[in-house]
Amino acid sequence: MAVQNKVSLPVIKRLPKYYRYLTNLSADGKDKISSSELAHMMGTTASQVRQDFNCFGGFGQQGIGYKVDVLRAEIGNLLFGDGEKLPTILVGAGRLGSAVSSFISRDANGYKLLGVFDVNPDLIGKEMCGVPILPLSDLDKFCAEHHPEVAVLCVPRQSAMDLAGELVNQGIKGFWNFSHYDLSVEYPDVTVENVHLGDSLMSLGYRLRNQEK
Amino acid sequence: MAVQNKVSLPVIKRLPKYYRYLTNLSADGKDKISSSELAHMMGTTASQVRQDFNCFGGFGQQGIGYKVDVLRAEIGNLLFGDGEKLPTILVGAGRLGSAVSSFISRDANGYKLLGVFDVNPDLIGKEMCGVPILPLSDLDKFCAEHHPEVAVLCVPRQSAMDLAGELVNQGIKGFWNFSHYDLSVEYPDVTVENVHLGDSLMSLGYRLRNQEK
Repeated sequence: MAVQNKVSLPVIKRLPKYYRYLTNLSADGKDKISSSELAHMMGTTASQVRQDFNCFGGFGQQGIGYKVDVLRAEIGNLLFGDGEKLPTILVGAGRLGSAVSSFISRDANGYKLLGVFDVNPDLIGKEMCGVPILPLSDLDKFCAEHHPEVAVLCVPRQSAMDLAGELVNQGIKGFWNFSHYDLSVEYPDVTVENVHLGDSLMSLGYRLRNQEK
Repeated sequence: MAVQNKVSLPVIKRLPKYYRYLTNLSADGKDKISSSELAHMMGTTASQVRQDFNCFGGFGQQGIGYKVDVLRAEIGNLLFGDGEKLPTILVGAGRLGSAVSSFISRDANGYKLLGVFDVNPDLIGKEMCGVPILPLSDLDKFCAEHHPEVAVLCVPRQSAMDLAGELVNQGIKGFWNFSHYDLSVEYPDVTVENVHLGDSLMSLGYRLRNQEK
């Protein structure tokens, strides 16, 4: 498969959505789908679907429709590579961390949760998704020993600001960041997904209060 | 303030981010800021900032910089209207629902949590953010009585598909949807924020495995 050297971020962000729809189609027993059917389901256009797929060599099949399972597997290969899981730590074992840990531990997502860290003595020693919760003071030692590559931050803004540089120095290459702090702005060399749930809720509120459906 | 009739979704989605940065600037004691300073902090361009603000009449001040507190208040007015909170229910009181409930209950976000629903008998009768967890079978009666306008869905895809139409019939105008199901595609007349945490995690994985920082 010919993958373009640099696929744009909006295209990358749509890949999991294709994967999700194809997974559902497969579960529903659908064998084949055309780009226009897929586009219709997803609320986009056939031309958008074909353009997106062309970034990855097109996945063949154009004109006669795509085989659902083959297309799903090809997009799965892009998302999950050779199946090796990304070694991951989670910082912040509160309610949000607890919810998020189940996404990291879910095999299908391609990550492996190695350690969970918190400063709250009531949480330390407990387990989250089968992984012990360790004191934050153990973080450096743990990273030096286990070489995690991804850090999930479920901590307040100030803690995220304090921790991010240290984690980059410890070899963290990617962040799934839930703190109120846009890591990418300060660390252009690491890959970051910022998830601002509060932003999402506020923009829903704006749309409900002001206008359009 | 002259607000355009139809502000585009990407602009709306950036409003909470401006609000977040201005809140932090205000907390850090900063009085004034130019569009280029703000743009630099946010990893965007001054021209983008000015274009976005022009959708709302520009917030005055151009050329001499913006007063941080004034600008924050004006954007806050857009996001939160007259301060009346949006009456909201949460369906699905598991780990994700629990994490999400704290965002809804946070006064600053502009919502009021009225009721929480689940099918799990172990959860029913307990409280979440001070609100009792009720059986899902009480949903219709509750909606008829309390008229919630927003529903937060922290349930699996099939439950979301089953519930969405019923909730729309019950007067729900907006969804904050965490299920693996894109509500907006089937209900064009309601306002939806789909939050797909799995998608976010997968696209981070793609970027870490394949390319660019």
